[in-house]
Amino acid sequence: MRTEVDEPTVAEVGEFGVIRRLAGDRPPGTDGTVLVDTGDDAAVLATSDGRVVACTDMLVEGRHFRLEWSAPSDVGRKAIAQNAADIAAMGGECTGFLVALGCPPSTPVRVLEEMSAGARAEAARVGAAIVGGDLVQAQQVVLSVTALGALSGRRAVRRSGARPGDVVALCGGTGASAAGLALLESGWGTSECAVALDEAAAARLIAAHLRPHPPYGAGPQAADAGATAMIDISDGLVADLGHLAAESGVVLRLDPARLAEDAGGGAGFDDLRAAADALGADPWDWALGGGEDHPLAATFPAAGPLPEGWRAVGTVHATGAAEAGGARLPAGPAVLVGDSCYGGAPGWVAFGG
Amino acid sequence: MRTEVDEPTVAEVGEFGVIRRLAGDRPPGTDGTVLVDTGDDAAVLATSDGRVVACTDMLVEGRHFRLEWSAPSDVGRKAIAQNAADIAAMGGECTGFLVALGCPPSTPVRVLEEMSAGARAEAARVGAAIVGGDLVQAQQVVLSVTALGALSGRRAVRRSGARPGDVVALCGGTGASAAGLALLESGWGTSECAVALDEAAAARLIAAHLRPHPPYGAGPQAADAGATAMIDISDGLVADLGHLAAESGVVLRLDPARLAEDAGGGAGFDDLRAAADALGADPWDWALGGGEDHPLAATFPAAGPLPEGWRAVGTVHATGAAEAGGARLPAGPAVLVGDSCYGGAPGWVAFGG
Repeated sequence: MRTEVDEPTVAEVGEFGVIRRLAGDRPPGTDGTVLVDTGDDAAVLATSDGRVVACTDMLVEGRHFRLEWSAPSDVGRKAIAQNAADIAAMGGECTGFLVALGCPPSTPVRVLEEMSAGARAEAARVGAAIVGGDLVQAQQVVLSVTALGALSGRRAVRRSGARPGDVVALCGGTGASAAGLALLESGWGTSECAVALDEAAAARLIAAHLRPHPPYGAGPQAADAGATAMIDISDGLVADLGHLAAESGVVLRLDPARLAEDAGGGAGFDDLRAAADALGADPWDWALGGGEDHPLAATFPAAGPLPEGWRAVGTVHATGAAEAGGARLPAGPAVLVGDSCYGGAPGWVAFGG
Repeated sequence: MRTEVDEPTVAEVGEFGVIRRLAGDRPPGTDGTVLVDTGDDAAVLATSDGRVVACTDMLVEGRHFRLEWSAPSDVGRKAIAQNAADIAAMGGECTGFLVALGCPPSTPVRVLEEMSAGARAEAARVGAAIVGGDLVQAQQVVLSVTALGALSGRRAVRRSGARPGDVVALCGGTGASAAGLALLESGWGTSECAVALDEAAAARLIAAHLRPHPPYGAGPQAADAGATAMIDISDGLVADLGHLAAESGVVLRLDPARLAEDAGGGAGFDDLRAAADALGADPWDWALGGGEDHPLAATFPAAGPLPEGWRAVGTVHATGAAEAGGARLPAGPAVLVGDSCYGGAPGWVAFGG
């Protein structure tokens, strides 16, 4: 990480001094929800309907982010974003976050302030506050976020509800984050980098990696529209849809032409292709296997229209179903791209590499 | 950590393989509370009264525990216990836990299985289940636990409600954990250790350090009995009561004779004194400054009787109040032991040492 001469470190300012500096204002509209926040043994939040949704994700320096590539504020944003995407994938809306942070004593307080500001900004985007946390000494920077959410009377949409005949739909695209990461790994932006690519395209892909924008509102919207199953695509499209297929006991068949329309998300498939050409990579490896774009994937009954922002990319089938021409679908849960099982990059592997 | 030849590592078994091995049964009685648990994007819990209590604590290997001293199951138990104690200190009962775990790829799966079994056992003691989590690669073992709890119509007891005239009370004692840690640091149990101490006393103190038993039920009990403020003593008695004094804007005066009756907790003040003699330490440094015993401290109106298990150890005063003999109490929030501000060990410092 970038450090400046003589800037105060966490060891110098101390746990409570740092916590005082990080305490931020609550976003507007959270006062009815946040009944007790940071500064007590625990926070107390109101729940809208007698249920609370909760999930947790840990980010480790050098593994999930590098402070040479990510500004501290990007790390804070991303930690909140990936947890908030999990709440959205249940059909929920975030009500509060708890942030536990480990870091070396030599960490400049500025780095934590920027990280905290990024986390608060992303929390405010979903209308929630950071209501609690912990600050401890560790060898590397470790951020562990817990997101709490409300369903407001909505059904929780699980991974297990997809039924044969349903439509598979995506809100957002995949591949841009993996392409952005590949560019950073190639040394893009440094004088040694010989990759020939349009500056603006590279910037879009790198931004997609550093500052993902999950479509939070699309989760509750899908639940309201009758989604039968839903999942946040964090490890890779095929890998995560594989979990949904397994939990639902179905075969998902994706249409590559439809996928290409959304691949690359905000950056677009042209950017993916250009970056792949420049790096000698396959853009489909990024679109099907790359993680961290955080679109939502859901299945919907075929009869109804899809909610705004959602696009059909495939269909749900019974395992072992007979196909035209006498072929049969796989006998167990699977994800097909066209007619084939995808055999490319396996998606994010927690203990790989 | 102790590893055996050829035992499978986390890298070999992989994230989802490990998670499958760690999935345990829910404790009885949690089915009405746990609506969706591990295996989906997020868990869903029922809340008893439209409010949820939530807190988080991170434990780092080498900083908060050492796998040479603690069995993995002890680490799992302690991570749950210290979070559950924070829920109790608000007057709440635990309903579920989320556990995020970082570890090196070379970590034997057995270590995680034992850690998880310890965490599940302690969660079951408070009648709650582990409903979600994350497993990632890190340089050292890092456990980040979030506890969720219910108030069931009870008022949340905060740190800020102590009023002059209230009684300060403790449920449980302090100092045994610090004494146990000092014994472990002295090499107790190894052939090089020359500390002369009764084996059984040493075992009691070390057990207090490795396997704390916070009085979880005493939190809701204190809330029901009208406690005006409450806190979990995790960093040290004087340090944590200092937070309560600061939030309430009062002076707390503790009676050393009363403290001595509870010091050492289950082990007792005789054990503390014997260990201090053997190590050349001051037992009061452990009782007043030592952390991780997790008794609860609370203030109660003077009129009523204290709930079972709680013992009066001091009184609450206005800042700057006049004393008999013309003396004045400190002009700002403070904790006095007898007539003096405690000047010994400052309690746990997150970025010290």
